[in-house]
Amino acid sequence: MSLVLDPAAQDLLFREARTANTFTDEPVTDEQVQAIYDLVKYGPTSMNQSPLRITLVRSAEARERLVQHLGDGNKKKTAAAPLVAILSADNEFHDELPQLFPHFPAAKGFFGERSVRESSAALNATLQAAYFIIGVRAAGLAAGPMTGLDFEGVRKEFLDDDHTPLMVVNIGKPGEDAWFPRSPRLEADQVITTV
Amino acid sequence: MSLVLDPAAQDLLFREARTANTFTDEPVTDEQVQAIYDLVKYGPTSMNQSPLRITLVRSAEARERLVQHLGDGNKKKTAAAPLVAILSADNEFHDELPQLFPHFPAAKGFFGERSVRESSAALNATLQAAYFIIGVRAAGLAAGPMTGLDFEGVRKEFLDDDHTPLMVVNIGKPGEDAWFPRSPRLEADQVITTV
Repeated sequence: MSLVLDPAAQDLLFREARTANTFTDEPVTDEQVQAIYDLVKYGPTSMNQSPLRITLVRSAEARERLVQHLGDGNKKKTAAAPLVAILSADNEFHDELPQLFPHFPAAKGFFGERSVRESSAALNATLQAAYFIIGVRAAGLAAGPMTGLDFEGVRKEFLDDDHTPLMVVNIGKPGEDAWFPRSPRLEADQVITTV
Repeated sequence: MSLVLDPAAQDLLFREARTANTFTDEPVTDEQVQAIYDLVKYGPTSMNQSPLRITLVRSAEARERLVQHLGDGNKKKTAAAPLVAILSADNEFHDELPQLFPHFPAAKGFFGERSVRESSAALNATLQAAYFIIGVRAAGLAAGPMTGLDFEGVRKEFLDDDHTPLMVVNIGKPGEDAWFPRSPRLEADQVITTV
């Protein structure tokens, strides 16, 4: 009774949502991706840095190039998914700060060093990757996020030196035998301490 | 119309939810934190690694010790927040993998190297930090996540060598003038490309 979020929404986003390994043939449209983005763009990041970038791998040719950089266990399901997205961090996010954080023009100056930008972009783009996964579920779709891949290969194939890939996400309606049984979670007392 | 999540839930979690800088005096109970955790623990992580750890800073003495490690702009609001949580990544998460990923006993062996564990823990605990922020909002509360702090100081004061702090989050019911006007977000065409 401590949560105010509607129980059906709790189920949709967390309790019944699962990482999918198979999908139906139903396409995922650009309109759906836009609706997901337009919801999750409001998730908070440090100084509104918003460094997440999304590469939708739609063409058969690009899909084939991506699949070769994935771990063997991820190849078949990614080749067959209705939509595949590469999520990356833009290490040059500070160029957008005058647009994103207009009330504090000095913000951009905090990020003169590439190493400072990289660590901030990784943190904040990863937060946004989680919001994106929640957003996929909010669209009634299943996400299949994957980190079993050759990150440097994906970067060279699809991105550039200014972008760091974080994960690849398969997206679609779950298909037959879409997931394994739910694995156990840690109990609250294994995770939470009080001082 | 592309989203199936109830519009009120969209507002609660993303559109109307805001990072809060002031709070009412209403306490945040352990039952609320437990309910938040019991929802967001289902958010996905790689191989169910679940490396997020949560330190609730409840005592006045501990609160004072924490505040001294925060940036000046974060001190006053953190001293006054009903509840403050330190979110950290457990770099020894692999010890729990036999419990968390029981169908694949070899999983623990992938994480023999500390540097591999650290990068995996950072990625996955950061995803879980985002789920936690969403969960705070699902409880009808506002979160005030902060990264303007002395991370090494917080680690030495509250954690140990095996835990890496990610952020500090103030939690409570929003108070007077709780937030700044919403900053602009990037348009979808600034974020999404298709190949």
